[in-house]
Amino acid sequence: MENYNYYITHSQKIADLEHSISVLNWDQEVFMPENSAPRRAQQIATLAGIHHELSTEKKFGEVLEKLKNEDLTDIQKRNVSESLKAYKKSTKLNGAFVTQMSKTISESFVAWNEARSKNDFSIFAPKLEELVKLKREECELYGYENHPYNAQLDLYEPGATVKDLDILFKDVKHQLVEFVAKIASAPQNDESLMFQKYETTKQLAFTEELLAQMGYNFKSGRQDLSTHPFTTTFSSKDVRVTTRVNENDLSEILWSSIHEGGHALYEQGLLDDNYGLPAGSYLSLGLHESQSRLYENNLGRSLNYWKHNFARLQNIFPENLNNYSAEDFYKAMNIVKPSLIRTNADELTYHFHVLIRYEIEKDLIGGTIEVADLPRIWNEKYKAYLGVDVPSDSMGVLQDIHWSHGSFGYFPTYSIGSFYAAQFYNQASKDINNLDELIKEGNLAPLLNWLREKIHKHGRLFAADELCIKITGEKLNFKYFMEYAKKKYSALYNLN
Amino acid sequence: MENYNYYITHSQKIADLEHSISVLNWDQEVFMPENSAPRRAQQIATLAGIHHELSTEKKFGEVLEKLKNEDLTDIQKRNVSESLKAYKKSTKLNGAFVTQMSKTISESFVAWNEARSKNDFSIFAPKLEELVKLKREECELYGYENHPYNAQLDLYEPGATVKDLDILFKDVKHQLVEFVAKIASAPQNDESLMFQKYETTKQLAFTEELLAQMGYNFKSGRQDLSTHPFTTTFSSKDVRVTTRVNENDLSEILWSSIHEGGHALYEQGLLDDNYGLPAGSYLSLGLHESQSRLYENNLGRSLNYWKHNFARLQNIFPENLNNYSAEDFYKAMNIVKPSLIRTNADELTYHFHVLIRYEIEKDLIGGTIEVADLPRIWNEKYKAYLGVDVPSDSMGVLQDIHWSHGSFGYFPTYSIGSFYAAQFYNQASKDINNLDELIKEGNLAPLLNWLREKIHKHGRLFAADELCIKITGEKLNFKYFMEYAKKKYSALYNLN
Repeated sequence: MENYNYYITHSQKIADLEHSISVLNWDQEVFMPENSAPRRAQQIATLAGIHHELSTEKKFGEVLEKLKNEDLTDIQKRNVSESLKAYKKSTKLNGAFVTQMSKTISESFVAWNEARSKNDFSIFAPKLEELVKLKREECELYGYENHPYNAQLDLYEPGATVKDLDILFKDVKHQLVEFVAKIASAPQNDESLMFQKYETTKQLAFTEELLAQMGYNFKSGRQDLSTHPFTTTFSSKDVRVTTRVNENDLSEILWSSIHEGGHALYEQGLLDDNYGLPAGSYLSLGLHESQSRLYENNLGRSLNYWKHNFARLQNIFPENLNNYSAEDFYKAMNIVKPSLIRTNADELTYHFHVLIRYEIEKDLIGGTIEVADLPRIWNEKYKAYLGVDVPSDSMGVLQDIHWSHGSFGYFPTYSIGSFYAAQFYNQASKDINNLDELIKEGNLAPLLNWLREKIHKHGRLFAADELCIKITGEKLNFKYFMEYAKKKYSALYNLN
Repeated sequence: MENYNYYITHSQKIADLEHSISVLNWDQEVFMPENSAPRRAQQIATLAGIHHELSTEKKFGEVLEKLKNEDLTDIQKRNVSESLKAYKKSTKLNGAFVTQMSKTISESFVAWNEARSKNDFSIFAPKLEELVKLKREECELYGYENHPYNAQLDLYEPGATVKDLDILFKDVKHQLVEFVAKIASAPQNDESLMFQKYETTKQLAFTEELLAQMGYNFKSGRQDLSTHPFTTTFSSKDVRVTTRVNENDLSEILWSSIHEGGHALYEQGLLDDNYGLPAGSYLSLGLHESQSRLYENNLGRSLNYWKHNFARLQNIFPENLNNYSAEDFYKAMNIVKPSLIRTNADELTYHFHVLIRYEIEKDLIGGTIEVADLPRIWNEKYKAYLGVDVPSDSMGVLQDIHWSHGSFGYFPTYSIGSFYAAQFYNQASKDINNLDELIKEGNLAPLLNWLREKIHKHGRLFAADELCIKITGEKLNFKYFMEYAKKKYSALYNLN
């Protein structure tokens, strides 16, 4: 077992570095004083450099190769093969390329920030061009089959391909666009109750109750405030969430906290014994997002959930809510309305935003369009899919941080996650006796136990496709999301 | 300049590791959820291991040796010689010894914790014996002149020796013991106003005002709560303090915040351009403590300081304080009274606590007494120097964490710091026009500027002795503390 023990020790050391970087990043987003930024960036870069050295260490690769031929258990074999895949990936990019990429990303981020605040795409364009060029090169270095964009997709959703996503987004385009058009012709519901004045400390305390009810373990985590909500993991025993509060918009904190709580439950459900190993790591970003979306949408925006929790909320904000019912609240949180900004979109039109980014990224990485075309294409697609005119690039092609970070292939995981969520939730409703009743009683433990058993505890032991078949009997299928959407929103908008 | 540039880059990398560890430690003390502890310990150990590898890297030592013969500026020369000293020190302990020490310290800490809570020295004794044995060995490995304890002292206060400290503590023993006896025979002042109920959030807000008034830069730091107050540095642009609040004892937060604020001003005053180099590092623990004690005692427990700040405090707590004057408050915060616990001691009898630890450590490391003798010797010395009977080992020999951490030679820096503080403050009063008047007006900037110019900005460019002579014209001299004490407390206790 000498080689396997070395493998564990070295993998855990890599994990220690990775999680230490996460602590520094978390602090940066949550508590760090402003003057600290430059030195903190340097400290993170130093740790990242050491992390890279350890991840690509020659001996590590040699041991992994040897382990392929050793007599291991199935779990050990899976750990080794996943680690070897990651090792090979990290060794495909040479140091000079990594440095060049990292420098270009830093500059792109600065340029994007300025471009967005000045509403001037031309400030961002030259840097983005450099970055896209490097990304295209990166695809060649990693290697791919059929379409270079597959190399990018694989970074976030192993196994995802243009071929499969084209089919998925074709469904989105046809079925969902049509259904949303029907909703648009129905009378709109009232959401004004969300936009009253709600005291922030009470909002925070209420979401802590919701997190505890979901099963989030505050002895292995905490919730703080940050500009952009996120979940971060230092081990499955320390998984932190952040949220944001708007005194005049209750929805902001609710969906942030519940969404991040879903992510955090996944991470808290990974087995600490497998710390630093694939068996103790999340499967893919799509699977991760399935957990956050399941809690945010399938549970958190359901009537049964609020049948239990609305009374408590009324109790905290009697002056705001005593004249409303759980049903009013449910309607107000499920307004479907095409809009310009992805992060503010409802759970249906959200996928048009992703669809647009998917189509653009695929063509951009594939080389059939160029950076200079982006504003025009962006605006055309928003008109076509969402029916909205984009008034400025700041509210259009410059709205997301992702490209400036060099993340291409990330957006699709948001939709994949939602579609997995619908499919999993459909299965959970079958597997768990009286799930609806349990939720109405505020008993969320059976749902969490189901997710723990079916998904969390397996870490990366199965591929996403395999796991989905194991749980639901088939691969990811858009129909479950469509069924969920039709059932829920037909009732909400009195469609026949 | 190739070698010097390598030297800077490598030193900054070491500093990045050191400060990253500090972030992880800070989080552990301030915000970390309880279940996180084991993995966090492992993450810190991993970073510490890499830090040790970098600090003892062969090439680093070779470059430092080469640089000794290169044409450098005085500052560069000083950087290189200080770094070489540190390098040689770290390479004197081999890996096996470091591991053994670190393991023994972990076990000692656990044993000490249990021993203290059960009031049973015998639980701690065997581990402490192992640790003392290793510490004696460590002195031999480091090397020393005249007395092995000098090797330990040098870790915290470079240049400090048994010879000099014997003289210093002889003065403490004779002059201070005699003066405290005089105070003891005078009528005691009233401190009851400190022990009313003070709302904690208001206490916290008030200390933030005091820190800002001192010149603490909240854009380069923050104040949080922790069980044991401390200051920690991630760079001179991010120096954080912690404090503690007791709703029924206002003194707790006041002296914690002002004390840590003094430490933090020193760290914020180091030059960011010298990040990671001796020129950008604090000089010694004694010098560090001089900054905290100067603010805590010479300034923070002075009448002039409260002539300015008491009105504001009254304003915050009118019901508690409207019947009192600044003078009443000043008397209440300067009660001299022998006691059992070092951390609760007043600024005079405090040094008897240190004296006792100094005498014990010197003999223990020197091998003239053994661990088994400690409780008896401890109690005898408390009777002799403080006139108090020690009712239990928990309140006696087991009260401090230091020995369980393997820190021998640390305690004297507390007294050295106070004595430096008195000597520096005396000089500042001469150098700064109308210092008393400025303080009465709440204008503390000239004092901070003086400390910045005389001490902070020099980092480790001078030895402590040298710097003290540069500032005050002579080496550390106990008489300044004694003069300060006599003047202040003769007035407070109406002694003639």
